[in-house]
Amino acid sequence: MAANFFGQIFRITTFGESHGPAIGVVIDGCPAGLLITKEEIDQQLAFRRPGNNIYTSPRVEQDGVEILSGVFQGTTTGAPITLLIRNQDACSDQYAAIKDLYRPGHANFTYLEKYGLFDYRGGGRSSARETAARVAAGAVAKKLLAHFQIDCVAFMAEIGGVEMPPLGDSTLSALREKTYSSPIFCPDIEAEKLMIQRIEEVSLDGDSLGGIVGCIAHLPVGLGDPVYAKLEALLAFGMLSLPASKGFEIGSGFEAARKKGSEHNDGFMVNAEGKVETITNFSGGTLGGISTGSPLFFRVAFKPTSSIKKPQQTVSLTGESAVFQIPKTGRHDPCVAIRAVPVVEAMAALVLADSLLMHRSARLSEQLTLAVTTP
Amino acid sequence: MAANFFGQIFRITTFGESHGPAIGVVIDGCPAGLLITKEEIDQQLAFRRPGNNIYTSPRVEQDGVEILSGVFQGTTTGAPITLLIRNQDACSDQYAAIKDLYRPGHANFTYLEKYGLFDYRGGGRSSARETAARVAAGAVAKKLLAHFQIDCVAFMAEIGGVEMPPLGDSTLSALREKTYSSPIFCPDIEAEKLMIQRIEEVSLDGDSLGGIVGCIAHLPVGLGDPVYAKLEALLAFGMLSLPASKGFEIGSGFEAARKKGSEHNDGFMVNAEGKVETITNFSGGTLGGISTGSPLFFRVAFKPTSSIKKPQQTVSLTGESAVFQIPKTGRHDPCVAIRAVPVVEAMAALVLADSLLMHRSARLSEQLTLAVTTP
Amino acid sequence: MAANFFGQIFRITTFGESHGPAIGVVIDGCPAGLLITKEEIDQQLAFRRPGNNIYTSPRVEQDGVEILSGVFQGTTTGAPITLLIRNQDACSDQYAAIKDLYRPGHANFTYLEKYGLFDYRGGGRSSARETAARVAAGAVAKKLLAHFQIDCVAFMAEIGGVEMPPLGDSTLSALREKTYSSPIFCPDIEAEKLMIQRIEEVSLDGDSLGGIVGCIAHLPVGLGDPVYAKLEALLAFGMLSLPASKGFEIGSGFEAARKKGSEHNDGFMVNAEGKVETITNFSGGTLGGISTGSPLFFRVAFKPTSSIKKPQQTVSLTGESAVFQIPKTGRHDPCVAIRAVPVVEAMAALVLADSLLMHRSARLSEQLTLAVTTP
Amino acid sequence: MAANFFGQIFRITTFGESHGPAIGVVIDGCPAGLLITKEEIDQQLAFRRPGNNIYTSPRVEQDGVEILSGVFQGTTTGAPITLLIRNQDACSDQYAAIKDLYRPGHANFTYLEKYGLFDYRGGGRSSARETAARVAAGAVAKKLLAHFQIDCVAFMAEIGGVEMPPLGDSTLSALREKTYSSPIFCPDIEAEKLMIQRIEEVSLDGDSLGGIVGCIAHLPVGLGDPVYAKLEALLAFGMLSLPASKGFEIGSGFEAARKKGSEHNDGFMVNAEGKVETITNFSGGTLGGISTGSPLFFRVAFKPTSSIKKPQQTVSLTGESAVFQIPKTGRHDPCVAIRAVPVVEAMAALVLADSLLMHRSARLSEQLTLAVTTP
Repeated sequence: MAANFFGQIFRITTFGESHGPAIGVVIDGCPAGLLITKEEIDQQLAFRRPGNNIYTSPRVEQDGVEILSGVFQGTTTGAPITLLIRNQDACSDQYAAIKDLYRPGHANFTYLEKYGLFDYRGGGRSSARETAARVAAGAVAKKLLAHFQIDCVAFMAEIGGVEMPPLGDSTLSALREKTYSSPIFCPDIEAEKLMIQRIEEVSLDGDSLGGIVGCIAHLPVGLGDPVYAKLEALLAFGMLSLPASKGFEIGSGFEAARKKGSEHNDGFMVNAEGKVETITNFSGGTLGGISTGSPLFFRVAFKPTSSIKKPQQTVSLTGESAVFQIPKTGRHDPCVAIRAVPVVEAMAALVLADSLLMHRSARLSEQLTLAVTTP
Repeated sequence: MAANFFGQIFRITTFGESHGPAIGVVIDGCPAGLLITKEEIDQQLAFRRPGNNIYTSPRVEQDGVEILSGVFQGTTTGAPITLLIRNQDACSDQYAAIKDLYRPGHANFTYLEKYGLFDYRGGGRSSARETAARVAAGAVAKKLLAHFQIDCVAFMAEIGGVEMPPLGDSTLSALREKTYSSPIFCPDIEAEKLMIQRIEEVSLDGDSLGGIVGCIAHLPVGLGDPVYAKLEALLAFGMLSLPASKGFEIGSGFEAARKKGSEHNDGFMVNAEGKVETITNFSGGTLGGISTGSPLFFRVAFKPTSSIKKPQQTVSLTGESAVFQIPKTGRHDPCVAIRAVPVVEAMAALVLADSLLMHRSARLSEQLTLAVTTP
Repeated sequence: MAANFFGQIFRITTFGESHGPAIGVVIDGCPAGLLITKEEIDQQLAFRRPGNNIYTSPRVEQDGVEILSGVFQGTTTGAPITLLIRNQDACSDQYAAIKDLYRPGHANFTYLEKYGLFDYRGGGRSSARETAARVAAGAVAKKLLAHFQIDCVAFMAEIGGVEMPPLGDSTLSALREKTYSSPIFCPDIEAEKLMIQRIEEVSLDGDSLGGIVGCIAHLPVGLGDPVYAKLEALLAFGMLSLPASKGFEIGSGFEAARKKGSEHNDGFMVNAEGKVETITNFSGGTLGGISTGSPLFFRVAFKPTSSIKKPQQTVSLTGESAVFQIPKTGRHDPCVAIRAVPVVEAMAALVLADSLLMHRSARLSEQLTLAVTTP
Repeated sequence: MAANFFGQIFRITTFGESHGPAIGVVIDGCPAGLLITKEEIDQQLAFRRPGNNIYTSPRVEQDGVEILSGVFQGTTTGAPITLLIRNQDACSDQYAAIKDLYRPGHANFTYLEKYGLFDYRGGGRSSARETAARVAAGAVAKKLLAHFQIDCVAFMAEIGGVEMPPLGDSTLSALREKTYSSPIFCPDIEAEKLMIQRIEEVSLDGDSLGGIVGCIAHLPVGLGDPVYAKLEALLAFGMLSLPASKGFEIGSGFEAARKKGSEHNDGFMVNAEGKVETITNFSGGTLGGISTGSPLFFRVAFKPTSSIKKPQQTVSLTGESAVFQIPKTGRHDPCVAIRAVPVVEAMAALVLADSLLMHRSARLSEQLTLAVTTP
């Protein structure tokens, strides 16, 4: 079943396995006339790349992208944009000892049951490596959004129980700067310090931590379709399709379940520019699945990294009890949520880009409510 | 943009507004040969119907369905199945006083901005009325699932901060019986009592409560597609498309973010029947987006009902400050999460039915791993 | 497999069997703000309706449509538009004698093999009755097209070997007037006379005739997507999905295969308004799948009506040789191509409406090259 | 708008421009467990490759494919299969003189109008080069079909008015052998001789010829979906999406329009194996859009090559009258229909593969009517 795609109008199809020759993405449906360079895409990939510090897996990925199609003289042409990323450091030898075992928390059991095939080399399509293709595509989506003055920033909101304090009022560019200058993408210096401490503790112990990634977007009123293609439904779809994600909430999220209507409803007012907007923003930026114009805010929960260096009980392919243990020299993140930050941001950009283009057919008139950046 | 559909192979398209002549659904892609009756569908609709007790809105819906197509002599034919539900009690007169106001927590603001139209009569497509069409379609999906020995049950897990204790080991049919004999779909008698008490308190005060709906499914290993059409991604998509939902989590969900890998990983063992299965089930029944064969478990958060009888600050269509207040005689649920229970169950069935049929093209051989109920 | 839909953005899903309670269509993706009335839709259905004259089947269809959703106060709202047409004259008793026989030229054999079901009542989904739903949806599509000054007219080009002479230069509205004042939709009076003569001959004999329907559209340059969603590819898809159609050709069509490049290429010139256009139009209005701005012209071949009153050799469900013969009192068109004329026109409108909305995401700028009718 | 894909379950997305670094295809939805090698794909590409003889363009393409994903140890894994073909001989310098002119019969005019961009280097996405990706994907589709004993063969049926005589009774493998041993894919030696003579005449004159490609397939009863996804509708869609195609007909095609029902209907009989089949096969192998089990037969018309060495009238980008003339040294086929033969065959295989997998969800039981090749 064709199922490796995401999006209706701005549609990505990703391909490639973690231990094959390459991974990549075809973006089908990007409008013509968008300026985009290899450098801009590589810059996004760099944020996601492991090996920069002790907190992410030391696998060396030189994720330089090759633009195979769809861009002519630095401008998108309307043709499908293909971005290819070669796999360069796929040494699978060190897994020899554990290659016949079901890996706890991994998908080799379910892939075998579904497809009748067992790829001992690594995660295949289930590997987080696939998310590099999403980040590359997200770089193109962000350029499209920027043209319409839409922006989104993801950040580390919680690791191992250490929570970031609430975001104050700041511009998205200020938030981005703080976030991307942190090795763990946490924009708050105090929280960052505590989070790093927790990571170092469990790392020494060969263990791992879970975390929560937050994301905030500024966008105009009107994006999202009612009923099924609600903005939050598409975001939840995208976020739960990320490896290791376990939950999604928008606005007040699960806390909303403990609130009364009189506490939770966002009233309306007329703002300084004479526009209607909500007084509060418990909804997280949508009503009926359509953006209100207030900031969009959501959170994604990630489980602790499955690959740990502690012994775990499992079973071999031949059905015998066994102990699974990643070699001490193996490369794995102590907290997958860290590298998930740029991935969440890319995935959000992909959802918003598609919703933006879907919005163009909402009305007879093409002159919709979207402001456009003048060059 | 065509966006009122859900599913790839077993696809539903719903239609109709809360105050129009009818709502309904076309199910395109249901296999031929399935036995289904109007009564079975009506029975499911009865669970969702408001007006049965003081805890749900007293609007009288006689949701008898008319089967317009796709069923011949009690059997599906492979043709699209159309289920029509007439709207019978759509008196919109009582809203006259508030018809020119933006409704806090509702979508009339965003619909106006998106489509340039203001329907003063009620929620239109954003109304929870649309979910009756999902429940009707879900009744067909459940029959399909039953043929393959797949079952799912939703229940009320939390209202206004009152949590249900953990589910013990029980069959799904026992759980269903307890759930559906409760006026608020709570299978635990003690929790039910406390929940009802909370509802009555806020109801007297003209206020409302949020809640959390849980859902558990029994299904074989192998359903779900890797990468984008992960089982949990499709479920999150479906659940966040429900009116008033604010969050989704599978398995340990947001709690996973506070766990260590050594605590959270599910080891593998060989069970009594000689089959490989996970020892624990923190994952909630999927690995890499594919079902493990262990019970699938997820939760959905719902905000408190937006329509309350307390005054709320808002703005009129002409931009003047105003107070929005539902008339004392208006019909609204004190807790939308209650009626959401059968809707969550129906939506889960729709996701599983589609995943089941998608699974048929996973391998060359058509004799997949699915057990089938012998008649 | 969900397969009863057509279109990507402006998507129709049709439902209903010829001998069930109703047929209908859900239009998902029509922009908000379009004026449309029941009368406009009924008028289109009237052209397709049989029973108006001796040349089409005397089955009485009162195809008055019920608008179930998506239109409020005469204007589309952006919600799915559902059009319901009740079946009123579905007496299937007269088929009793032949109900266990495979019908030559019909689909009851292939439906039985595919679905394992045999519906003795009539054509079910394969009946031309389904095309009424397309015509109803086409009426909405035409209104959308009219807003963008796009128009299309279908007409009878050939029946039983009698060809219409080439169309001279005339406006589409003049062509429409001539076409729709002919009982067989032939805009040429001389050809019409000869065609009617042929029809009467074979009718007396209990036999039937095939025919060719032509269609011409005026549209701006730029519609259609390269590669797969070429304008001619989508038209061919739509036309070959019509019951009894056997072929499609655009522009010079099959004749192009007998031409030399120097004869067939359309050169370019600058026209009186200073715009580039093709000198000739052998291409039929597209280059590379995208409209050139010159008139779009295509033809569709229809086989002779399968239901004839002459005896035909066949087999019964139990495998015995049998003679199939429609009762003399049975209702069948001597030439299905006649009623196919408004259906071809509707289907063309559906393709063009979808291509028009798809075109909106071709470029960054929304102000595309489309002229819009000022009200 | 995402529109560079074809198929629902077995879905291809092609990418790449004729003068960019590479073209390729992602096949999403191929079942796991299929044996496929690079050599098998390259062999199919070789048939399409130009430069083998004087009758096709001398551009040297070394279309060796790189399998980037989806195949592990020679077997498909269920993951997307990516096939990459590098462009190696893309010298665009010789077009310098004509690079600012609209090319008669080409798409540079319509692409400019649609996307606002003018790629002077060559056809971009509109180039026949894109069809190499279809042929590569078709090689995989054919392997899938072979597993289910389905086969299809395309051949040259007519060039420049020279028609092949009717195919006698022969196996598909015999037909394939004769076809692929002819430099112009014509299985009839006499017709081939005359066709070659015609090609040489017009080639000397710098002109080109059109042609008609036939295709025949053997497949079981039951493939194809009613109403929109009819087998002939999907074939027409695929065939009219091929560059230079102008028409499609199935079975008796346009001739059906000149027949009477009593001549055209295919009666039914019980064959030697006790199975029901049609006595004649005017329908071309489908009834109601579903395969009858009789051979599927269709034809596709191709216009004469647009690129000729004769002068043609055109206009420059700046609106001045100009003469367009391909340099004598330019590389172009005198008859595009020749190289279209393997492309038509590949496209037919892609349609059949998708229809085959769609068929799996037609009934509750997975044991459908398909025979499978035992290894």
